[in-house]
Parts: sequence; structure tokens; C-alpha cells
Amino acid sequence: MKIVLDAMGGDYAPQVTVEGAVLAAREYDIEVILVGREEEIIEELTKHDTRGLNLPIVHASEVVEMWERPAEAVRAKKDSSIVVGMGIVERGEAEALVSAGNSGGVMVAALLSLGRIRGVIKRPALAAVYPTLRGFCVLLDAGANADCKPEHLLQFAFMGKCFAEVLGVKNPRIGIVSIGEEEIKGNELVQKAHQLLKKSDLNFVGNVEGKDIPFGLLADGRGLDVVVTDGFTGNVILKLSEGVSKALKTLIEEEIKRNPISKLGGLLAKPAFYRVRKRTDWREYGGASLLGVDGVVVLTHGRSDSIAIKNAIRLAKRLVEGKVVENIKRLFDE
Amino acid sequence: MKIVLDAMGGDYAPQVTVEGAVLAAREYDIEVILVGREEEIIEELTKHDTRGLNLPIVHASEVVEMWERPAEAVRAKKDSSIVVGMGIVERGEAEALVSAGNSGGVMVAALLSLGRIRGVIKRPALAAVYPTLRGFCVLLDAGANADCKPEHLLQFAFMGKCFAEVLGVKNPRIGIVSIGEEEIKGNELVQKAHQLLKKSDLNFVGNVEGKDIPFGLLADGRGLDVVVTDGFTGNVILKLSEGVSKALKTLIEEEIKRNPISKLGGLLAKPAFYRVRKRTDWREYGGASLLGVDGVVVLTHGRSDSIAIKNAIRLAKRLVEGKVVENIKRLFDE
Repeated sequence: MKIVLDAMGGDYAPQVTVEGAVLAAREYDIEVILVGREEEIIEELTKHDTRGLNLPIVHASEVVEMWERPAEAVRAKKDSSIVVGMGIVERGEAEALVSAGNSGGVMVAALLSLGRIRGVIKRPALAAVYPTLRGFCVLLDAGANADCKPEHLLQFAFMGKCFAEVLGVKNPRIGIVSIGEEEIKGNELVQKAHQLLKKSDLNFVGNVEGKDIPFGLLADGRGLDVVVTDGFTGNVILKLSEGVSKALKTLIEEEIKRNPISKLGGLLAKPAFYRVRKRTDWREYGGASLLGVDGVVVLTHGRSDSIAIKNAIRLAKRLVEGKVVENIKRLFDE
Repeated sequence: MKIVLDAMGGDYAPQVTVEGAVLAAREYDIEVILVGREEEIIEELTKHDTRGLNLPIVHASEVVEMWERPAEAVRAKKDSSIVVGMGIVERGEAEALVSAGNSGGVMVAALLSLGRIRGVIKRPALAAVYPTLRGFCVLLDAGANADCKPEHLLQFAFMGKCFAEVLGVKNPRIGIVSIGEEEIKGNELVQKAHQLLKKSDLNFVGNVEGKDIPFGLLADGRGLDVVVTDGFTGNVILKLSEGVSKALKTLIEEEIKRNPISKLGGLLAKPAFYRVRKRTDWREYGGASLLGVDGVVVLTHGRSDSIAIKNAIRLAKRLVEGKVVENIKRLFDE
């Protein structure tokens, strides 16, 4: 399998991207095509033992910066790593693209280059893997479409189902984010989408409240695999979860340091805290996938380190192996 | 000062409501009018030492249950504690009402009985005190208006400012929830509201992302006092924060119990955890206030215990003393 990595994307590129590629090529026995400024990539590669690894470089002289306006940047920078990398996938010379770069830019390039799957009526949706107490949920849209219509949410549900199935979930249970359990609760968008979901042949389990998402459970204890919402709410959910978790950890540290006994306690409990951190670490989950475009595209945090990059490549590999694009196509053909 | 307490409201009423009233009457030296089924209230009162306390009872034979449809229940149950209690405030025989009951019902009753402040163009907004690492933010709308227009968010900002001022914040810094720092980010509603806020004479500090709310800071480190959003997003934010916090605590407990050493560590650090719990406990913050109606109304969690009830009464007292209604009126007259 060949996976394109945007070697210039993210806050710590190309250092962590190249390192992540090395780790992934070694661990998953795949070819990772590094797209970006050749000299810089070579310089990073020399820091690693790459014997026996398949890490070809494709030169791209430009970079879409994190702060640039996506549409303009993608149109102006034809020789950027994002555009050149997407071209490789478009020509069928690789099966997927992974980027920690300007997410809007990746989305625009994917649409222009790979195009939408027939039947997808909106921009593609960003499906994120959201860690829960039970394991994970697929949350979508995580930020690609700030304004949605009810039928978009229905499509997100179908795409989320395919995504969850590739991750090993059978007959995924699908919920919609709302502000009360009853179907009359929520804003207009959610109330209407609820009815569409109810009428569909999806395994729809009803409204999910904010308090239940981190547990991956509905209020009545039923499990939850896919959480559907508009891109505005989805993005707030993702970022707020990260924020609350970080704030709480800061608070615990502050309070533990306040006296020597609890400090000792904190020290003894350190391995436990480490496991908590690992179980809630977004880096373990490999980022988010752009669903609805005709190809596998995985986006990850701009702040990604090499582990996060490696895990994003693993997610791309799984999505290719699980034929997520083909499955979405089949579902939308019906 | 006289404050009406809906003695029948909440999951554990009238036990915890009466107990909370006793605590508040004693601690704040105020009169708490207990509205509800006289016999049940008297039975609870006999369990406490109420000598010297001002705790009159006003009988109301009916109860609006938590699961009832607000508008119908309020119209049908004229002798419910919510409707009777609101009447006392309407007639000027008490300065505020506190309830842990059916929040929709309290809103409907407040609108019917107290009415809207002139100039308020939407249903009233629910302003919640959201605990942050820095102290607290006022978050509104926390769930009263699922669908909003840009001008509603502008009004929420003005009302949130008055609320924050009563809580001691000078020249409150007001942010709007969005999915990126730049003013072009967000859905249509937020983009338009951003422009209205920018043009206003409020101390508007721009977009706030989910990750920054729990810190009470903007991404650039500036503080934040009021967080404006529509009632759908606001409700998701409140409940998700509670959920993430609870899930993380569960996870920490789970991991700490996994081996004897970290278990000992957890034991030693217990006072630290206790302080963390206290600093993040919604019960300490006294619930949410309905802003935009012509009177002070405080709503608190259905799950409230007596401490939460007592603190909700304290919040009502502060809002009366700080003349929040008069301040909103003045602002909306200008």
C-alpha cells in the first residue's frame, strides 16, 4: 500500500512528519510517499535509520501555511505539498493522503482533485474518532460544514456508519446531538434531521446529550457508536472536550502540588495518571477523515507529534483496507 | 428580603428544598417563602431547628412534574408551586423566585406572570455561571432559545454584561463561541452576530473556541467574563463540560484502583481531589438565572441537593441586591 504524507503540514513539520513516516513505514510495512521540499525532507531522513524502508520523496516547492485562506492558497500554490500530494492520489499512484496542515486547504484540494462521491449533496464531512469511556465514537461533522440542512445530517449518518464499520463496529448505533432526550427537543435542524434518521434504515438510537457523549452511552445506558451533528456544534464538542480535559488536569496538578502529602500521593499515582492520559489522548486515535470525497484523506492536528502522524497513517491504512470509499459509494448508489 | 422557593421542584423535593431554605434563611438572614404542599413542607420543617428563622409557607396543591410539557402544564395547573410562587413575585410580595423544577415550566410561568422587559425581542435567556480555571464565566444562552438570530445574541451579550457586573466583574469582557479565532470563522449566525457585537459599545473581545472556555481565557491569553452563544450550543457546552469532567473522574478512579500503590497515592492525594471537586462543582455556583423577564428568577439543577438550593438562593439574593433587572431595563431603554 502507498500512502502520501504531506511532509510540510503541521506546526512541527517536516521534523515530526518525517519521523512519523519512518515509524509508520517500519511498523506497518507500507510505502509512505513524502511530499514537500526535497532538501528539508532529506535532511530529516538522514537523522533516522531508514534501511529497508519505502520512503520515496516527491518534491513540492510551496507550502500552504496554517493561517492562509484555504481556497485562495490552494488555487495560488499549485506546487504546494497539499496540491501535489493530492494529485498523486488522484492519478491512482497512491491510495490515501495524510496531512497535519491547513485543514481547509486539504478539503479544498480534495474536492478539486478527487471530487465528491456521486450523491453527496454537501461538502465532505470531517469524521473524528472521539475517545469515550467505552472506547470511541465516530463524531461527524467535526468542522467542515458550519451550516447544515437536515438532509446533510442524514448523509453524515450514512457516511459515519461506513467509517465505524471499517473500525470494526457491527451495525453501528447512531445518535444525533441534541439538548434533551425527547425527539421534540433541539433546534429546528435537529428536530427535522431526527425525523429523517428515524425513517431511514439506519440503526438510529435517538438524541444524545452533551453529558452522555464522553461516556459513549445514551442516558438509558444503550451504547453509542456514531454521533451526528452539524460542523459548528461538532467542532465545539471536539475542542471543548479537549479544553475541559486539559483544564481539569491543570487543576489536579495545581491542587496536588499544594502540600507535600498529596504531592507524594500524586507521585505514587503517577502510572495511573499516565494511563488516564493515554486513554484520553487524541494522538492515539489518528485524527479525522474527510468523508464524501472520492479517496481516502486523513487530517490530523496541526500540533501533531510523530506518534500522532504515525497513528494518522495507520487510520488511513485501515480506511483503505476497509474500503470505506467503495462502501460509501455503494450506499449512496442505492 | 423575601425570596420564594418552589419547595416541590427538583428530584429530591421537598426534602432538599426545605433543608436548603433552612440553611439559606439562617446564613443570609432572609425570609424564604416555601411554596408547595403545606403538609409535606411542615413534615420536612419539623426535622430542622427553625427557631428565629423566617420560613412562611404558602400552600399550592399541584406540582408541575419534570417530564411534563411546560406550556401545557403551566396552563393546566394553576395551583402548582411554580405558578403560585410566580404570582407572589408578580404581586411584589417577594423579590425573587428560585426553582429546581421543570425549567421550561418556570420559563413559561415567568413570561406569563412577570412578562418580558421592554425591548427584549426574544424569549428570556438562561445565564449560567460556568466555573473556569480563573474563576467563572457567565455563559448564555444556556438552553432557553434553541434557534436564535444575530440580534438575539447581541441582546444576550447586554444581559450577560449586567449579570457579570452584579457578580462583581467590572467592564466584563464578552466573547462569542465560534470554531476559529478569526472573525470570518463560524456559522452564518455567529459571523453576523460577531459584526453586531463589534459595532456595539460592549467590551467585545472576539471569538472564543471550545478549548478556551474552561480556562476562561482567549487563545491570546486575554481574560473572558461573558460567553455568548445560541441556546442549543450553550446547552451542549454546559452538559458536555459536566460529562467530560465526570468521565475523566471515573477514569482516574478506575486507573487509581488498578494497583495498591496508586491506590495509596490516591488516598494521600484525596484532599487535593476534594478541592478539585469543589472548584468544579456546579452546586457551588448556584444555578442559572432567567434574564429578560421583569423579575429575578433562578433555576437550578433537578438533581440539586440542599447546598445547591442554598447557593441558588444566594445567587437570587445577589441578583436582587445588585439590581440586575433594573440595570437590564436601563440598558434596553437606551
